[in-house]
Amino acid sequence: MTPTPVDLLIEARWIIPVKPDNTTLEHHAIAVHDGRIVAVLPINEARSRFVATKTVSLPDHVVTPGFVNLHCHAAMTLMRGLADDLPLMRWLQEAIWPAESRHASHAFVRDGSLLAAAEMLRGGITTCNDMYFFPEATAEAFARLGLRGVLGITVIEFPSQYAADADDYLRKGLEARDAWRDNPLIRFALAPHAPYTVSNKSFERIGALADELELPIHIHIHETAGEVADSVREFGQRPVARLESLGLLGPSLIGVHAVHLDTEDIERLAIHQCAIAHCPTSNMKLASGAAPVASLLDRQLAVGLGSDGAASNNRLDLLREMRQASLLAKLQTSDAAALPAHQALRMATLDGARALGLDAEIGSIEPGKAADIAALRIDDPDELPCYHPASHLIHVLDRRAVSDVWVGGQRRVKHGKLLQITNTELLGIARLWQNKLRQ
Amino acid sequence: MTPTPVDLLIEARWIIPVKPDNTTLEHHAIAVHDGRIVAVLPINEARSRFVATKTVSLPDHVVTPGFVNLHCHAAMTLMRGLADDLPLMRWLQEAIWPAESRHASHAFVRDGSLLAAAEMLRGGITTCNDMYFFPEATAEAFARLGLRGVLGITVIEFPSQYAADADDYLRKGLEARDAWRDNPLIRFALAPHAPYTVSNKSFERIGALADELELPIHIHIHETAGEVADSVREFGQRPVARLESLGLLGPSLIGVHAVHLDTEDIERLAIHQCAIAHCPTSNMKLASGAAPVASLLDRQLAVGLGSDGAASNNRLDLLREMRQASLLAKLQTSDAAALPAHQALRMATLDGARALGLDAEIGSIEPGKAADIAALRIDDPDELPCYHPASHLIHVLDRRAVSDVWVGGQRRVKHGKLLQITNTELLGIARLWQNKLRQ
Repeated sequence: MTPTPVDLLIEARWIIPVKPDNTTLEHHAIAVHDGRIVAVLPINEARSRFVATKTVSLPDHVVTPGFVNLHCHAAMTLMRGLADDLPLMRWLQEAIWPAESRHASHAFVRDGSLLAAAEMLRGGITTCNDMYFFPEATAEAFARLGLRGVLGITVIEFPSQYAADADDYLRKGLEARDAWRDNPLIRFALAPHAPYTVSNKSFERIGALADELELPIHIHIHETAGEVADSVREFGQRPVARLESLGLLGPSLIGVHAVHLDTEDIERLAIHQCAIAHCPTSNMKLASGAAPVASLLDRQLAVGLGSDGAASNNRLDLLREMRQASLLAKLQTSDAAALPAHQALRMATLDGARALGLDAEIGSIEPGKAADIAALRIDDPDELPCYHPASHLIHVLDRRAVSDVWVGGQRRVKHGKLLQITNTELLGIARLWQNKLRQ
Repeated sequence: MTPTPVDLLIEARWIIPVKPDNTTLEHHAIAVHDGRIVAVLPINEARSRFVATKTVSLPDHVVTPGFVNLHCHAAMTLMRGLADDLPLMRWLQEAIWPAESRHASHAFVRDGSLLAAAEMLRGGITTCNDMYFFPEATAEAFARLGLRGVLGITVIEFPSQYAADADDYLRKGLEARDAWRDNPLIRFALAPHAPYTVSNKSFERIGALADELELPIHIHIHETAGEVADSVREFGQRPVARLESLGLLGPSLIGVHAVHLDTEDIERLAIHQCAIAHCPTSNMKLASGAAPVASLLDRQLAVGLGSDGAASNNRLDLLREMRQASLLAKLQTSDAAALPAHQALRMATLDGARALGLDAEIGSIEPGKAADIAALRIDDPDELPCYHPASHLIHVLDRRAVSDVWVGGQRRVKHGKLLQITNTELLGIARLWQNKLRQ
């Protein structure tokens, strides 16, 4: 039999494909052609079945699907650690909103998103679901660095440097979507900021647009107890019930945070098969609480993981979020077996993809899917011995173990270095904005 | 004025000396002579007041006291991740104890402690309070790599490869102490394993020895709800009350974990000015719970941070523990201002030193103290911008940012590399034992 030509063969010590569940393949290879995974098979078989233009050997590495960051505000990387150890409302009112109102612009968002995309790709993230002003500037940054993005068409009822009112936000966001229509890496979602910042009228328009254009809805929900109480006072309903009344709940809704849920809220989210973006570090850091992840998983909701923005985390790092999700679930349920390693990895990959409606395309290492792949080295004595690569991924490795990353079969990170941008340019961006924001 | 000769001048972008509180010095230098800190002063003044044999310039770095790991089982590094996602008792009975009974030996403990010491030093830890069998083997490893150690004279009522009974444990531990008497880096503590594994008779002997020899007492307490209930059943007292009755509570007692405490337990610990080793990651991972750190700090107890062993964490990394302690305190108290950055750093340095009775010697960057110092680089675009170095230390940096480490003025890590041992030797050790333990 003549070997089939392929673009790329990735030969690895371990591959955790995520599908099938709980599987760690040893000495396997991934064949990639035209940006897609063609086969996953033992290295010896791969060498006889395929002849590759390029072979990458990863003898001490664990290879996983690229991570899906299900909730981010990429541009806020410019405000990383600007104001820590403050309660949520003081943090927003005294630090974040004043900085945004002075500085937010196309350039601010593009530059912040470049730093963010660099950080994410170097940490193995290949898809980011983002929400911020000037989404076209984030699209520009993600496309330049080759990060797959789902960009929020943000809607909020107050004016900003970006837009005047809800209609203006929608108009500008939809224009951005049209402008980026032909880029295979860039998609859009509707992103009403939160129930407490968006009116019923705007929600109705958003619901209609989501149906018509088949767009996901990306929204913060039930982050704090206060916003739930306010909603009951103002609308006579908890936010999730109000969204249900407005026809917003459904499989295309991604509810972010979802910390303060009662059993009825969970029931509503489950009936409508909503997805959840769990952001454990952000929820702990802002003292919001811990989302009832075990209950959400019991009800079969797609629960992915989000970093949130760097102003409230302070890293865009899904390795940290996987570990934190696992530790927090064990603490919360008093069960050391809760949220085991393979499940944490699935949340950071396939379940995030499912939440975005992209699970046919990304989220696991399976033939037919796009070759979004992360490789992590396990060869530092600090990280040895290694008995179980999946558990190592969650509890031992950190982001600097990420050595190589591909998005749609294109290499974005090689031996820990980004290929699309230099450190010099990134450092220049960080310094420029740090000086501006300091003033 | 003639400049004073000193061995070393460390010039840094930022220094956080821990004493005084909440202070970040910019463009300051540390003068070191004969292993001790001589002065902390602006770089320009330092250059005129001192003439140094060696000057180290750290232009993008934050410099802190070396971290004090207040609870570790160094040798267990050989069992890193051997059995994750298991409840505590299954983890002990099915994985850890069988492996220990087959493998524990002087060589196992020395080799595991070498890996551990390497990991700790590279992560900025300069002092480790350890508890395990064969403490003389751990002393050998720590001394070789130049890590300051307080080694537990472990006492437990069951026989092991190391000793036959409580008297034998004590005899061997005290012999080890005598043998290491002249090494300035190595100290000893009495380490009764836990109230549920040590008899009243042994505790009485340990109490007398602690007084006579002026040794700290290092003991696991109140890690699980089960052990508290068992103690009430068996002794008619909660473990802390029982230790009080036995005369064990006092400023030299370091209670590890201290998760399941009621207000009376806290009162007893406070009256006797006991110290606590808080191990947030281990407590979360084994689903033990969250120690009431805010209450303990309110009562002025010295609360330091511990990594616990690599079998239950799975890293010996105080940067992770500082971040986790801060995040967990915010979650637990619903207060985003709880356990702010400077306080987390103080727990990992000066409060740990105070717990060990070593706060006159180490734990802050002050004239007269031993020069135990860690430097971390902040120059990777992934970690920028940086507005507040203390907050960066807790929420942004990870262990690979640690560039340089000194213990007693001796450089142990230079540009991220250990000076006392090669990676080749460490990799050999890890592989050797991984193969043995796998069988």
